[in-house]
Amino acid sequence: MMFVRLLRRDTVVQGIELYIAVIPVSIAIAIGLALYLIWRITRMDPGTEKMKQIHKAIRQGSHAYLKRQYKVVLAILSLITVVLYFLIDYTHNLGVPYVALSFMMGTVSSLLAGYVSMEAATRANVMAANAARRSQTKPLSIAFQGGLVLGITVVAMSLLGVAGLFYLYWAANGWRNVEKIPELIMGYGFGASLAALFAQLGGGIYTKAADVGADLVGKIEAGIPEDDPRNPATVADNVGDNVGDCAGRGADLFESISAENIGSMIIGGGLFMATQNMFFLLYPIIARAIGLIATIFGAMAVRPKENEAPIASLRKGLIVSTILIAIALYFATTQMLGPHSELLYYASLTGLIAAIAIEVVTEYYTGEHKPVKEIAEAARTGPATNIHIGLSVGMEATALPIILVLIALAASYVLGTQYGQLTGIDPHTGGVYGTVTATIGMLSLTGIILAMDGYGPIADNTGGIIEMSGVEEVSSETLDALDAAGNTTKALAKGFAMGSAAMAALLLFQAYVDIVKIDIFNLIMPSTLIGLIVGAMIPFLFSSQAIKAVGRAAQKMIDEVRRQFREIPGILEGKNPPDYAKCVEISTMAAQKEMIAPSLIILVSPIITGLLLGPIAAGAFLIGVTASGIMLAFTQNTAGAAWDNAKKILEKIGEKGSEQHKATVVGDTVGDPMKDTAGPSIHVVLKLVNNVAIVFGALFLLYALYLVP
Amino acid sequence: MMFVRLLRRDTVVQGIELYIAVIPVSIAIAIGLALYLIWRITRMDPGTEKMKQIHKAIRQGSHAYLKRQYKVVLAILSLITVVLYFLIDYTHNLGVPYVALSFMMGTVSSLLAGYVSMEAATRANVMAANAARRSQTKPLSIAFQGGLVLGITVVAMSLLGVAGLFYLYWAANGWRNVEKIPELIMGYGFGASLAALFAQLGGGIYTKAADVGADLVGKIEAGIPEDDPRNPATVADNVGDNVGDCAGRGADLFESISAENIGSMIIGGGLFMATQNMFFLLYPIIARAIGLIATIFGAMAVRPKENEAPIASLRKGLIVSTILIAIALYFATTQMLGPHSELLYYASLTGLIAAIAIEVVTEYYTGEHKPVKEIAEAARTGPATNIHIGLSVGMEATALPIILVLIALAASYVLGTQYGQLTGIDPHTGGVYGTVTATIGMLSLTGIILAMDGYGPIADNTGGIIEMSGVEEVSSETLDALDAAGNTTKALAKGFAMGSAAMAALLLFQAYVDIVKIDIFNLIMPSTLIGLIVGAMIPFLFSSQAIKAVGRAAQKMIDEVRRQFREIPGILEGKNPPDYAKCVEISTMAAQKEMIAPSLIILVSPIITGLLLGPIAAGAFLIGVTASGIMLAFTQNTAGAAWDNAKKILEKIGEKGSEQHKATVVGDTVGDPMKDTAGPSIHVVLKLVNNVAIVFGALFLLYALYLVP
Repeated sequence: MMFVRLLRRDTVVQGIELYIAVIPVSIAIAIGLALYLIWRITRMDPGTEKMKQIHKAIRQGSHAYLKRQYKVVLAILSLITVVLYFLIDYTHNLGVPYVALSFMMGTVSSLLAGYVSMEAATRANVMAANAARRSQTKPLSIAFQGGLVLGITVVAMSLLGVAGLFYLYWAANGWRNVEKIPELIMGYGFGASLAALFAQLGGGIYTKAADVGADLVGKIEAGIPEDDPRNPATVADNVGDNVGDCAGRGADLFESISAENIGSMIIGGGLFMATQNMFFLLYPIIARAIGLIATIFGAMAVRPKENEAPIASLRKGLIVSTILIAIALYFATTQMLGPHSELLYYASLTGLIAAIAIEVVTEYYTGEHKPVKEIAEAARTGPATNIHIGLSVGMEATALPIILVLIALAASYVLGTQYGQLTGIDPHTGGVYGTVTATIGMLSLTGIILAMDGYGPIADNTGGIIEMSGVEEVSSETLDALDAAGNTTKALAKGFAMGSAAMAALLLFQAYVDIVKIDIFNLIMPSTLIGLIVGAMIPFLFSSQAIKAVGRAAQKMIDEVRRQFREIPGILEGKNPPDYAKCVEISTMAAQKEMIAPSLIILVSPIITGLLLGPIAAGAFLIGVTASGIMLAFTQNTAGAAWDNAKKILEKIGEKGSEQHKATVVGDTVGDPMKDTAGPSIHVVLKLVNNVAIVFGALFLLYALYLVP
Repeated sequence: MMFVRLLRRDTVVQGIELYIAVIPVSIAIAIGLALYLIWRITRMDPGTEKMKQIHKAIRQGSHAYLKRQYKVVLAILSLITVVLYFLIDYTHNLGVPYVALSFMMGTVSSLLAGYVSMEAATRANVMAANAARRSQTKPLSIAFQGGLVLGITVVAMSLLGVAGLFYLYWAANGWRNVEKIPELIMGYGFGASLAALFAQLGGGIYTKAADVGADLVGKIEAGIPEDDPRNPATVADNVGDNVGDCAGRGADLFESISAENIGSMIIGGGLFMATQNMFFLLYPIIARAIGLIATIFGAMAVRPKENEAPIASLRKGLIVSTILIAIALYFATTQMLGPHSELLYYASLTGLIAAIAIEVVTEYYTGEHKPVKEIAEAARTGPATNIHIGLSVGMEATALPIILVLIALAASYVLGTQYGQLTGIDPHTGGVYGTVTATIGMLSLTGIILAMDGYGPIADNTGGIIEMSGVEEVSSETLDALDAAGNTTKALAKGFAMGSAAMAALLLFQAYVDIVKIDIFNLIMPSTLIGLIVGAMIPFLFSSQAIKAVGRAAQKMIDEVRRQFREIPGILEGKNPPDYAKCVEISTMAAQKEMIAPSLIILVSPIITGLLLGPIAAGAFLIGVTASGIMLAFTQNTAGAAWDNAKKILEKIGEKGSEQHKATVVGDTVGDPMKDTAGPSIHVVLKLVNNVAIVFGALFLLYALYLVP
């Protein structure tokens, strides 16, 4: 109320209460809906005793992992909180430890969002499995609802955190320097991105160690099928789907939108000062809130029908949401940002269009189209040629999405400069705000994309539970259709996550520029060049360590599965159950141990660059990481998904077991840590390095050694 | 004489004739020595009738390839010459068509250097094979002498071209604007780099199509050993060693040193104008000439002894050459560049030291050390884990070499700025000249490194001829020792080529900056960012197309080998000879066809960027290509060599034929097009994009559309 009064005094826009009110309303609707969906799912019938048992094992495994992960993460993050307090809040006499506090809030919110999503996913899986015994459409509905909990919780929690912190600091400090708030709460984005790296990298190591271990010993050595209950690693494999795809991607996108919100507000702060229109500051969070509501309505369009492919139903949800978001953004933008703001609306559309276009390109490269067919065909001459073509497809797939992102960036910048010229704002500032609105447009899709993405691991689990519990009423067509849709939505979500990470990283770079107040990063100076090239090296070093981590963790899993096959009598005849918990524990411990070193590289390298070479080199470092990171992530994500689907194509035409199929299994396994560990973790890396630089930028300005001019 | 008089008038240095005279003297010594070595090798005894036959087939194949390649290349390059003439020389009223002429000279010199080297290599192979029947040390000597022809011819031809053009233009135009000559002859570097791309990419496609084809059908399907005369692709495989490793790498480094010479002189021109010391202009070519003489003396240290590993003898040559070059550079630098020039000498040492350090790192990652052993060990659980660890090693191996190059860059720049401060030259200009001397220092090693590199394919061929002709007197230890040394020298040469390509590319970027006369390339402007990110994408797109090209070419070879096995009666019993010529033809035609599209990407993309977005974006594009290209090349070169050697480790301990060994064969085949086609071609790409931008820079300034600010 006080807040609202303040705004009315300071701004030219009428009815601002209405806009601000959208934020708490949207959060309330979203969290209410999420809780309702969880409650409704929980009340369903989980099926046979065997199903309940398996389900319990998966839930226990997921909880065990989260508990362990949260312990490690909270320990590390508490340490960092203390460091931040002394290095930044204390030395800068900020009074209230804004940065340390918001950092802590960011990590806790991210962990909480992950927890809620996992709860929904690990409940929905068994309900969908049981529903599949009687209906073709019901399991799809349940899995999508589980995914929707992930999508809206992540967006709502991020909004709650950013808007809440904004409100709290404003409440404590009054309206003076309100435009400085985003800079003070930048720790939130940093905390969220560090939690996201642990979630994505740890989850990625977990899931692929279990997957590779289960496949190499179970499928290849012992010759038992996927998800066979005799395989000791099979529960860990299903847990992995949840912790890697569900919690990991959730944390990744939680971070994208949090970072984007704060970065946008940092940049908007400057425009607010210039125009006295406070909406430049608040537009990012209000637009996010409106997008959240549009997403909830869009999700209602997912109404599975008999004789319709599941992916078609899901796609309807995406299309309707996109249209609703485009309409909502039109009203929000033109109402809030004053005359000529339709230019900024067009800028936001470029982001939305780029996101959809990236989805189409991703689908082309990873779906059943020419590239994947060529990979399958190349397997005729063995695994090596299969891998050649897969790698080649992965590298080729960088071109179009990058060009789409860059076109959105260019077009939105140009629209923003025109807006600036028409309204008397500095054209470059206007241009940067144009790119901000493009990023907002793109990220408005986060909720619905995450809902579709969350569907994937739930559908995987559904299949797993049905296989493991020996339920036979479910037709293999129903299962295959569920599974195929999940693979597609996962690939789409990764394409989106990558595109939005690129946009978010470039936006964060602009926020960094604002914070260090340097306006020339000149490539002909050696320190700039050195920073950039070191930055370009980091994603390679990181990927290398991530893949090796999966290799080491998988080796432990392989040894354990072999040991159980050897030592537990009658295990392969199904007489004695395997020790699932032991495998879950191995994956859990390995993930915790292996995620530390690669994360440290990412955390420390921007700080070292900044302190040795200065803030300009650090800025160039960020661009280097972004430029090479985008390519490496697209390459790894696409190649991995394409290899996977090349294998599936052969299975569909009954080639399972042939030499050609075996060659594609090698390709699929090669791609596993690329597409589910290294690739998606790079999305987080892009944003994390920027967040680190934003938080430590002030220190670079004070203490840099400037070893090279 | 007139030239010498001119210099005496204009400069402060005494005895300048002596320095300039070093250039023709060094060229005469080097070319004389090369011809003498070829003559001596030709007079040797080529051995049995069967050996002569095989040898003749390899020579015919190599000639057929070169002939075909030269036709295609000359056709394309003539076209480009005409385009350059009308676009640049004619429209700029340059009178004499400097750019077009020097472009033509650059290509022809590169082709000629390749031709001489191939002549030496394809003569030395059979002589070394015959010598191996009686001696352990003799074949090593012969193969190294063959390689030495490559090394000194390449350096001498480049020097002849650059210094000759300089002299010719000076002779025609007198001493006015002598500092502008390097800019006028920049077409030489462009021509050499385009010829190099065709040589490296075409050669890489040729050699890997033949290799993969011979291995997959011969070794795996028919179960006959490597280099078996019954395999129709085996002659093509041996021809491939020559055209890929020998002519390809020769053209690559021909281009590096030509581009470096011209780039250095463009930058030196500015310093000459400021100081009136003409040595700033001439130092790069004089230093190269002195280095060439030092290399010839250093090569004399290669005196193979009984009971000494071949690699140890070769290494002695490298060490002695390095020491001699370091001493020679000391006198040259301090005598020519005036007071305080010891700082520039130290700067040149940083390049020399970085080159040697990169060799040590490359040896660690690709030799019989921990990383390669881990790759071999990972093959225990199959090809997928073998490939995981290999990829991981490849990506990790980017870190240290990059840091070494950057330290050399930073240190030499800082030394140069100090030199500038002490001598009253603008510190940045001094710093850039410091990096120039570092590049000169590094590239001084080109001759001896190429000699060692050329040894590799000759030793491969030696083994091939012995196997194919059924000579039995040669112990397998002698053969293995020859072969192992060749693998090491090839990996070292690639590490060196990559490091020097990075230095050369950064130097060419500075030359581009000089030409477009822009001194701010600001990363916060969207067009700069867009140029940079598009640039970073190019090496991925290029690699993708190169690997796919090998895949397609190999497929044709596989079909042909299978056809011959099927249709020629008694071929596998050795009763009827296979049709070697047909396989040679297939590789030749496929290489010509497949090299066009990837080359076009490289040729056209900097021009499009420059014309659409302007010269600043084009400059950022160059840095983007360099930053991501270095990483991708190191990754692919290192992973490929490491997989190859992991396989060899298992063969050494008698694991040949085991499942573990088979898994490493898959890894080796995966690495083939990475390490011998895509990776090394990227070296050329880095320099080619810079050369294109240098030549077209004036057009960007005139006609750019500046679509984005």
